[in-house]
Amino acid sequence: MAELQPQPYLDFAKGLAYEAGDIMREYFDPKAQRKQIKPDGSPVTIADLEINRLVIRRVAEQFPNDGVVGEEESTDVYGSDKHLWVCDPIDGTAAFTWGVPTAMFSLALLIDGRPEIGVTYEPVTDRLYWAVRGLGAYLNNKLIKVNTNSLETGTLAASSTPSHFNRPYYQELQRHSVAMAPICGIVFSSASIAEGRSVGKITEGGKNHDIAASQVIIDEAGGKITDLAGKPLDYTKPFKGFVVSNGVVHDELLKYLR
Amino acid sequence: MAELQPQPYLDFAKGLAYEAGDIMREYFDPKAQRKQIKPDGSPVTIADLEINRLVIRRVAEQFPNDGVVGEEESTDVYGSDKHLWVCDPIDGTAAFTWGVPTAMFSLALLIDGRPEIGVTYEPVTDRLYWAVRGLGAYLNNKLIKVNTNSLETGTLAASSTPSHFNRPYYQELQRHSVAMAPICGIVFSSASIAEGRSVGKITEGGKNHDIAASQVIIDEAGGKITDLAGKPLDYTKPFKGFVVSNGVVHDELLKYLR
Repeated sequence: MAELQPQPYLDFAKGLAYEAGDIMREYFDPKAQRKQIKPDGSPVTIADLEINRLVIRRVAEQFPNDGVVGEEESTDVYGSDKHLWVCDPIDGTAAFTWGVPTAMFSLALLIDGRPEIGVTYEPVTDRLYWAVRGLGAYLNNKLIKVNTNSLETGTLAASSTPSHFNRPYYQELQRHSVAMAPICGIVFSSASIAEGRSVGKITEGGKNHDIAASQVIIDEAGGKITDLAGKPLDYTKPFKGFVVSNGVVHDELLKYLR
Repeated sequence: MAELQPQPYLDFAKGLAYEAGDIMREYFDPKAQRKQIKPDGSPVTIADLEINRLVIRRVAEQFPNDGVVGEEESTDVYGSDKHLWVCDPIDGTAAFTWGVPTAMFSLALLIDGRPEIGVTYEPVTDRLYWAVRGLGAYLNNKLIKVNTNSLETGTLAASSTPSHFNRPYYQELQRHSVAMAPICGIVFSSASIAEGRSVGKITEGGKNHDIAASQVIIDEAGGKITDLAGKPLDYTKPFKGFVVSNGVVHDELLKYLR
């Protein structure tokens, strides 16, 4: 990002995360949620829609040439500046409805198809993760780094959908006694890897908005993200899934998938 | 509890929960945890030991005739007043180390073997659940009640140990498409049922200290707790497990277990 002055974009993304957090906190009460189910069976709350609209509105006000791709709603893809804001208003919405605060807001700025700034936010515990390419990854004001654990000494962030544990690679991971933490939320799982709490996470069927912001945070924290075959993610195309890790366990996780 | 004036005991238990919470919050940082593994493979942190000792010390100061049974350490069982404080310093310790704030402090006062006061506390999100028998269940200052959902419309609080999902009743629950939330922590799961977020929870191998405080909270919130065969829990004996529910789904959960 030699040509870009990142500060105004970073400040904008952080401010938007806090605004989204205010909406999320309001809906943390189970009675306020009025949950709906999307055609694919995943839950969507009024808060998801409200936050997605907020992002579109704020980008239009502040950076009218930038595009927005949101999980629930998008504007024209790519503006004249080749700036694209990719947003998941609430990742891990299910946890949000269970009262487990792992649901997170996620916003990335992509330039020419590459995530350059990433901000993710868990509002109930007030944890803001953020990174600018080349400048390190942070949790609030603290520099963070992945840990150096192996699959033997560390914990894998696992699926929170019990039926997934029937899949061959999860059965194999169990046979090898790999410690697993079933965390609801790809964004929260990625943050836990970036922060050095867990070592990796396999996500089948994950979408671009699930990982765009975490890509910068993981890269800057010293971790690694690839597609399920081990190739770098191409954000100009839809994904089939990805592997996030501390780097140390990455190849081993790819082996479990084969 | 006609003969007991509960207020001093309730105030004591709440104060102790907040004290425990201060210790827990301090250890929420992954680097402060210095995790050890107990002989049964479960993790124990310095915070567990510190809080258990705090409870023993505070009870000795305030109610010198009362006994303490803690997960990590106990005093003489039953004092002359037949008052027993049953404590789990941190339930769901694993979640505590993952950075997922579902780890909770739990403290019950048993009189003649029956839980009469229960206090459970999640310090990161500052959620204090409490109940006195006959006087209702509360989250902070708000009266709480179980929901009236069925297994079709509600969410089951499920195990957070992926290998458990291989068991026949979990496989059967999956075949019936029961929505499941893998939450780490029996105390947090019970709180989520008491609060009307989830409908039930099956716990195999649970111990007395895991459920004593939640017993009062669940009873007062309108829910139900039995052993795995459907009988009321006898706190004078060790358990083999228990079923916690909103009442509505209780018999159905027992059927899945058979």
